[in-house]
Amino acid sequence: MAHIALGVDETEFPGISGPMRFRPETAVHLNGLAEVLLRAPHSMPAGERELIAAYVSGLNSCTFCRESHSAFAAAQLDSGMALVDQVRADLDAAPVSAKLRALLRIAGAVQESGRSVTPELVAAARAEGATDVEIHDTVLIAAAFCMYNRYVDGLGTLAPEDPAAYAASAKRIVELGYGAVG
Amino acid sequence: MAHIALGVDETEFPGISGPMRFRPETAVHLNGLAEVLLRAPHSMPAGERELIAAYVSGLNSCTFCRESHSAFAAAQLDSGMALVDQVRADLDAAPVSAKLRALLRIAGAVQESGRSVTPELVAAARAEGATDVEIHDTVLIAAAFCMYNRYVDGLGTLAPEDPAAYAASAKRIVELGYGAVG
Repeated sequence: MAHIALGVDETEFPGISGPMRFRPETAVHLNGLAEVLLRAPHSMPAGERELIAAYVSGLNSCTFCRESHSAFAAAQLDSGMALVDQVRADLDAAPVSAKLRALLRIAGAVQESGRSVTPELVAAARAEGATDVEIHDTVLIAAAFCMYNRYVDGLGTLAPEDPAAYAASAKRIVELGYGAVG
Repeated sequence: MAHIALGVDETEFPGISGPMRFRPETAVHLNGLAEVLLRAPHSMPAGERELIAAYVSGLNSCTFCRESHSAFAAAQLDSGMALVDQVRADLDAAPVSAKLRALLRIAGAVQESGRSVTPELVAAARAEGATDVEIHDTVLIAAAFCMYNRYVDGLGTLAPEDPAAYAASAKRIVELGYGAVG
């Protein structure tokens, strides 16, 4: 049970959706940010941006966000959940492009601390063709999930155990976007 | 110099203001969230909410955010920068209300990890009169500064050394709010 009375049935509104219903004034900005970073037209496919979110959420051990964004990534990547699992298990060996691997390394540094992002990590991404917007958005996606993860777990919200719950959310997010889910 | 070409003179637009000009599509949501959390009408004075932001930014060793929000807190608290310094130096001994101290302890736990927020920390805040909205907003302010801090430092932005720069920003924020500064 969450640390505060969210005013919802948590089995119906698990994870971040409970606090978002409790405080719609902040939810609108949290959803707006996710929509721009993860779904708006971009040089990086939505599945790759969701993969960064899933990877960071895994590093933060946030079950709800990790399972949610793994499902959202899998639903939008050709190689589906297998690739998500490989990235989370062993980034160095996972079959992703050199550019995406370099960006995921930047995301991993951000998860630790902003000050862990070195000029070398940025240069490595740029050498593989990453643009300034892609580097900016990778840093902000990783930073934003350091917020979402702490929001979800800091309020002690419920993370469903049934993978079907996350798959159902993935369908909704891919069809309707973040603004429509709260 | 920042890790990416922000397209601004960083001495004129230091810290978060450079990345916000570089990517206005995300800045609008980052500013919107800060405005609701730190300045909108609330049971907690703006100075106390800025103090939470300054405290978390200090724990994350983010110089730009720590100095900015310390100045914003000081400008809106009767006891000014002396109180901000005391809270940052020794929370247990600082002359704040028992409720604010308990909320700052929750914020400190969030900075570590969302999973560090215990039912005991929440119960202690509630015993001192904290409401569910106050507990929610404390968790989200702390979580959001784990994002802002990583965003600012992850892009390697400039933190002015002159305290006058932060005092000037404080004047602008208190007068005009977050939406007007980018």
